[in-house]
Amino acid sequence: MQTITVIGAGSWGTALAFVLAENDHNTLIWSHRQSQSDEINSHHTNSKYLPDRLLPESLKATSDLQQAIAHSDVIVLAVPTKAFREVISNFMPFLNTPKTFVHVSKGIEPDSLKRISEIMEEEIPAELRSSIVVLSGPSHAEEVVLKHPTTVTVASTDIEAAKKIQDLFMNHYFRVYTNEDIIGVELGGSLKNVIALAAGIVDGLGYGDNAKAALITRGLAEISRLGIQMGAEPYTFIGLTGMGDLIVTCTSVHSRNWRAGNLLGKGNSLEEVLEDMGMVVEGVRTTKAAYQLSQKYDIEMPITTALYKVLFEGLTPKEGVDQLMLRTKKHELEDFKSF
Amino acid sequence: MQTITVIGAGSWGTALAFVLAENDHNTLIWSHRQSQSDEINSHHTNSKYLPDRLLPESLKATSDLQQAIAHSDVIVLAVPTKAFREVISNFMPFLNTPKTFVHVSKGIEPDSLKRISEIMEEEIPAELRSSIVVLSGPSHAEEVVLKHPTTVTVASTDIEAAKKIQDLFMNHYFRVYTNEDIIGVELGGSLKNVIALAAGIVDGLGYGDNAKAALITRGLAEISRLGIQMGAEPYTFIGLTGMGDLIVTCTSVHSRNWRAGNLLGKGNSLEEVLEDMGMVVEGVRTTKAAYQLSQKYDIEMPITTALYKVLFEGLTPKEGVDQLMLRTKKHELEDFKSF
Repeated sequence: MQTITVIGAGSWGTALAFVLAENDHNTLIWSHRQSQSDEINSHHTNSKYLPDRLLPESLKATSDLQQAIAHSDVIVLAVPTKAFREVISNFMPFLNTPKTFVHVSKGIEPDSLKRISEIMEEEIPAELRSSIVVLSGPSHAEEVVLKHPTTVTVASTDIEAAKKIQDLFMNHYFRVYTNEDIIGVELGGSLKNVIALAAGIVDGLGYGDNAKAALITRGLAEISRLGIQMGAEPYTFIGLTGMGDLIVTCTSVHSRNWRAGNLLGKGNSLEEVLEDMGMVVEGVRTTKAAYQLSQKYDIEMPITTALYKVLFEGLTPKEGVDQLMLRTKKHELEDFKSF
Repeated sequence: MQTITVIGAGSWGTALAFVLAENDHNTLIWSHRQSQSDEINSHHTNSKYLPDRLLPESLKATSDLQQAIAHSDVIVLAVPTKAFREVISNFMPFLNTPKTFVHVSKGIEPDSLKRISEIMEEEIPAELRSSIVVLSGPSHAEEVVLKHPTTVTVASTDIEAAKKIQDLFMNHYFRVYTNEDIIGVELGGSLKNVIALAAGIVDGLGYGDNAKAALITRGLAEISRLGIQMGAEPYTFIGLTGMGDLIVTCTSVHSRNWRAGNLLGKGNSLEEVLEDMGMVVEGVRTTKAAYQLSQKYDIEMPITTALYKVLFEGLTPKEGVDQLMLRTKKHELEDFKSF
């Protein structure tokens, strides 16, 4: 039995805490809402994020950030990308010894163009972090707490730290692979939200499975081209955190980004969609960042570019898709030859 | 305007003839049923395979194989894999000059372990074929005749022949890429049916999106491993005929192989499933061939092997999936390092 802290009690943080507690680790989950940590401690439920599921009784919750940080040398950060810097600055006063930080967030900061682990390196002084690990992969939280088979990857340049995290999470329904390529894992998890938005548009336009399969395939190609230029390992993109997560996000009606794209494809404006969904659509922010990255690294990313024009420059979704279809005749592997 | 013959008036042959006739080529489609060629000529419909769709009036049909072969120097073979050798031997008496043959079939012959183009090389003497081209990709026929955006690849070791076929088919809703890697394109198109059967099983067991995404991802990895050993180009497998076709086949309820797997996952026996479907399930034959290939080339193919045991050796679907989940802890890229 080991100790472990999960910061953030949304659906994914709670599902990961569920797995850890089920694996008999002394697990403490932090919620910023007192009522939510009370509910987890008293009723063993998190009805807002995982309705109808009973959590292990051994899983304890707190809303005391100092207690949460003190609980363990392994801290899992399961907070929204947008709130990342703020959450770190909130717990920094309580951080006195170096810890292993695991993050499970997806996104790239517009303008700064930082990945999450880079934000962590900026915000947490080197002497207070022993390693940074990312956990990512095709994983709806709802299915994990039903103990349906799920696979994820833990990546770190410190492979021993990744193996330690693999050991903590792995069980018969939660299969964990390791990988050193933190750049590729973070980029794949983030940029798939751009393609998921585009896939939703294609579905919203009623264009069918052929068009969507082409979009996903060509989408992975442009993600890979950019990623390789940024230092990622090519094969990461055909693994769980690349292709796997891309498939699940583009083909599941549960995906928030797909749903936003779907509404756009059906003719709603971006303002209407964001209002209708009433929550953050990470892919919109990430599309801006991805477009900026494609400019910075001078990489041809036709899907990202078309989507950027649809979201921010008034191109209609149909015009965007038609532009993609009418490009010049090509050899299929032209784009991959840079691998 | 050019002349072109399509042999086979199933849904895919008819959809391809539809595209060619729409592109203003003098297109003749051969059906082995007189009533079907009569219907196409008189009513411009193929109600058995593409109900409710009107075909171009310029598309002509025949049931005279001699006339069909004489019509053009480009012959598209759109016949079931199982009937391939028989159809060729039927038209051989009428073949007097070398022609370009394009095939659009998916499968590997069990025991002989031949790909379709290898069967063509065996059955058509070298002096009577100028080139062999394969056309493959994520493409439901029903969507093509609705003019929904579709992308495919034409592959040939003779790249000029591939470009000629690209020119014949390409238009604003049917986008065609070229590729020299006929081995990779044929293997991807065939072996995806094995993974689609397995994906159907996972869905039939109710295991959810996480498990299916993992299966598709790991499925592509084992297809790639085998293909590379057999001489294919690695990047073909992340293209339209690999990943693209795999996605469409594993996620569409229209896929025959997925449906067969789904029924297996729900507890039906293979005999019940085949009887219930009342038609050929190509993936069953291909699973046998793929398993034989994995033995011949000594390549680890856990999904193919588990499915083979389910189909032919009495393993239950649940046991098969559980065996996949309980393999040893791994580095994610271990399997890819042979790329």
